Amino acid sequence: MNILITGGAGFLGQQLLRALLDRGTLDAGRGPQTIDRIVCFDQTEGAITDPRVRNIAGSIADPSAVAALVDAETAVVVHLAAVVSGTAEADFDLGMRVNLDGTRNLLQACRALGHRPRVLFSSSIAVFGGDLPSVVTDATTPTPQGSYGVQKLIGELLVQDYTRKGFIDGRAVRVPTVVVRPGKPNGAASGFASGIIREPLAGQPCLLPVDLATEMWMASPRAVVGMFLRALELPESAWGWNRVLNLPGLVASMHDALAALREIGGEAAAALVKRQPDPAVIALVKTWAARFETRRAREMGFTADADVMAIVRAYVEDNPAAVVMRR
Amino acid sequence: MNILITGGAGFLGQQLLRALLDRGTLDAGRGPQTIDRIVCFDQTEGAITDPRVRNIAGSIADPSAVAALVDAETAVVVHLAAVVSGTAEADFDLGMRVNLDGTRNLLQACRALGHRPRVLFSSSIAVFGGDLPSVVTDATTPTPQGSYGVQKLIGELLVQDYTRKGFIDGRAVRVPTVVVRPGKPNGAASGFASGIIREPLAGQPCLLPVDLATEMWMASPRAVVGMFLRALELPESAWGWNRVLNLPGLVASMHDALAALREIGGEAAAALVKRQPDPAVIALVKTWAARFETRRAREMGFTADADVMAIVRAYVEDNPAAVVMRR
Repeated sequence: MNILITGGAGFLGQQLLRALLDRGTLDAGRGPQTIDRIVCFDQTEGAITDPRVRNIAGSIADPSAVAALVDAETAVVVHLAAVVSGTAEADFDLGMRVNLDGTRNLLQACRALGHRPRVLFSSSIAVFGGDLPSVVTDATTPTPQGSYGVQKLIGELLVQDYTRKGFIDGRAVRVPTVVVRPGKPNGAASGFASGIIREPLAGQPCLLPVDLATEMWMASPRAVVGMFLRALELPESAWGWNRVLNLPGLVASMHDALAALREIGGEAAAALVKRQPDPAVIALVKTWAARFETRRAREMGFTADADVMAIVRAYVEDNPAAVVMRR
Repeated sequence: MNILITGGAGFLGQQLLRALLDRGTLDAGRGPQTIDRIVCFDQTEGAITDPRVRNIAGSIADPSAVAALVDAETAVVVHLAAVVSGTAEADFDLGMRVNLDGTRNLLQACRALGHRPRVLFSSSIAVFGGDLPSVVTDATTPTPQGSYGVQKLIGELLVQDYTRKGFIDGRAVRVPTVVVRPGKPNGAASGFASGIIREPLAGQPCLLPVDLATEMWMASPRAVVGMFLRALELPESAWGWNRVLNLPGLVASMHDALAALREIGGEAAAALVKRQPDPAVIALVKTWAARFETRRAREMGFTADADVMAIVRAYVEDNPAAVVMRR
């Protein structure tokens, strides 16, 4: 079995790639099969080298480059490649080109194969916004208030329609804010939620642009990778016609996150976080959904992290070299 | 003031064009202004000639052709051009090219003007489908079950985002099934609802592919044109951030429609309708929403036809040459 991961060199792609290599098999509808090859596609080559991994650099916005990534052996595609929220808002055309045209390029390449590959599309809770109920449920209408959310929602609709037409076996999952993102800050507007854990644990100062009471819907990279694998392995009958799902996560305030930081990194780490309210970020975050009831996903067996302490612990375990502050 | 109507040579476009010419003025936010020019764009040239009308034939899928339709004087754009439901389902690529890429071409052309033209997008109740509640409300999540509905929903999202970004002043209205469509049958899967009135009144036989109890959400072309004008003239404050609206209509069964046909055209006309159930059409129509509660639109002052008799009467008045059967 061959697998393609777009955006595979990103931190989530690399974590998924490693999980797939560790497992060695995947059940994409025909029982567990050996993973022979994983194509890791991104703007730059991925860092993981393995006889089974083929790292390819290119642009998802280039139809012919994308078509060349899949072939008769491609059974599974995981589509993570995207311009993140802050970048998509700052550069509208770039967001449309990568997030919308890129997704169309990939879906067309999958359709052209003719064998209905299983396609997982990483969507986002950024599809929700505007006049939201206090708790977002499976019935809440997505009304995104940013171009990133709009582009992700359009991607979901295309995955849904390509599936209905019999072109692919698609699944789209709305991923909570991923905390703690390792590495450098990216263009995601939600980046501070990771930053206030990651930077202090690395001994670096960090600014918190929102109130301590600000809540977010979060999941660890580890939990998200686990849910990706579940989304891929669930039979079509478990999905039915509705191929879009709000993933479980947990609601945590910045206060909760700082308490977990203090617990793991000590007072010295917590002291590295400086509150510096940014009205623009505060206004933006207020439009995001923080509380979800993910009944359908729970019934389909998806589970996320127990609490924010578990999220921080997972980060420390997965990124030991990035952590210098320990209590 | 200059106005562009895409799909302007279609029956709804022509009816809107005539209504605009008759009025002579339109208020697009700066008080009623004289309509100097209406560009009527379609695949073929429109039939209405008037010193103020410029008929242009071309493809909405051609970005440069679309860009040439608007200029510094273009204050209002009405986007009707689309491949209809049956055609979009039969030819997926054509539907994507016209309904999705065409809409993007137009929005990009409007954005490039830099003066935020007012743009009305004709969407459809085909955005609804799947596991619908018995009555669709303003809060019902669109989950289209056909490519046409998907493409219209994507168009709405783009109109919404282009408006939020300040590129246009957009409004998207979900039009009920338009009954009675004059002229020849088109590729719309809902075409029989018009056919069973239009063909018998013209003395022609007609097949009814669904049960008499089948209900549909309808509006006359006359009512729809009136609602288009209202959607264009309402100030931005009446819309707020949510630029998408379910339009009022009325629910009528095929039984109701035939009763109105009998009332206007007599027994001889009604006898021209032959019931011939088509399982494919029956299955498709079952996925459509028939009953709506359009509270937001009512509060914004939109109104539709009183009853199905009014719809048939409007057709007879507007298309006297097409009616030979009268009671």
